Amino acid sequence: MQRGKFITLEGGEGVGKSTNLQFVTEWLREKGIAFVQTREPGGTPLAEELRELLLSRREEAVDPTAELLMVFAARAQHLAQVIKPALERGDWVICDRFTDATYAYQGGGRQLDRALIAQLEETVQGDLRPDRVLLLDLDPQVGLERAASTGAADRFESEQLAFFQRVRAAYRERAEAAPERYAVVDASRPLEQVQQQLQSELEKLLR
Amino acid sequence: MQRGKFITLEGGEGVGKSTNLQFVTEWLREKGIAFVQTREPGGTPLAEELRELLLSRREEAVDPTAELLMVFAARAQHLAQVIKPALERGDWVICDRFTDATYAYQGGGRQLDRALIAQLEETVQGDLRPDRVLLLDLDPQVGLERAASTGAADRFESEQLAFFQRVRAAYRERAEAAPERYAVVDASRPLEQVQQQLQSELEKLLR
Repeated sequence: MQRGKFITLEGGEGVGKSTNLQFVTEWLREKGIAFVQTREPGGTPLAEELRELLLSRREEAVDPTAELLMVFAARAQHLAQVIKPALERGDWVICDRFTDATYAYQGGGRQLDRALIAQLEETVQGDLRPDRVLLLDLDPQVGLERAASTGAADRFESEQLAFFQRVRAAYRERAEAAPERYAVVDASRPLEQVQQQLQSELEKLLR
Repeated sequence: MQRGKFITLEGGEGVGKSTNLQFVTEWLREKGIAFVQTREPGGTPLAEELRELLLSRREEAVDPTAELLMVFAARAQHLAQVIKPALERGDWVICDRFTDATYAYQGGGRQLDRALIAQLEETVQGDLRPDRVLLLDLDPQVGLERAASTGAADRFESEQLAFFQRVRAAYRERAEAAPERYAVVDASRPLEQVQQQLQSELEKLLR
């Protein structure tokens, strides 16, 4: 039994993750590949409850380390219950955000120590990493304008522009450091071109 | 301004924590010491929501590492919002369970790696440790019988005897390794004797 491929879709606010996630899952269906579509934080009942705690706006200031540990708690649960079993039975996994989002939002956005994130990544994931990270890259000023039309902002979405600029920078830094695992997709281009690039990236995984 | 004292009350199921906690807070009141009474997991709105997630029984098997990270997430929030500010303004803090409970329940009970717990303790607490740990020690067979009369069991209370035997052993091991910080109180004795010992331990902290 061959292990399934683990693909993550990453990016800041308003980069078009939902639309492109749908494109990826349609491609998988067309190819007849068994897959699990999931998301972080979340993906199991307990992890989704943690997501709720993470995203909800609250009076109480949330300690950045507490936030980081909640993210990795949800991830440990998600890996144990969903991601690892799927990959082991040969399914592909397509996940809407994963640990790169932690480096981007908690590392970049909140400016937490990257070494601490790396330590927790090692604790929770061992050597499990995505086979391919599809990073939708966009100027956050443009992304926030696109995202503004879609309902009430959660605790992250209500951050300021500088926060999202750090998020983008951290994502790009991750991609530059390991180009063999990342596909940086310019999300400012017309959707058709974005999806052409996504398709060619996906096809590489079949080889 | 002198930093307040940080006291924790620890022990397994049915050791008489509630009754003795009340005894400690009455002693503090009599001495005219400003204090904060709190508990773990919990102590802030977010940390109490995490407590709910931790204690509630669920269909889903909870990954032990996810559980451990949730405990430390709640602790980070509790320290930032409640414990550290209280100690810094000179209040004493009396906390119903703290990190020794993590070594006992997640380390002993769930048999998680103690080195991982120590690493998270360092990340979340830095060098902050309780000034005094009051450990109520009791044969879990006796404790579980005492506790059985008090309503529906939560996710921890519904564990088996062997789990609580490991919890007790881990608590005792912690106390033996640092006797200057721990008071082991034999909770099988009559309440009056237990409280005489607690009182003499508390008075040592005034010196």
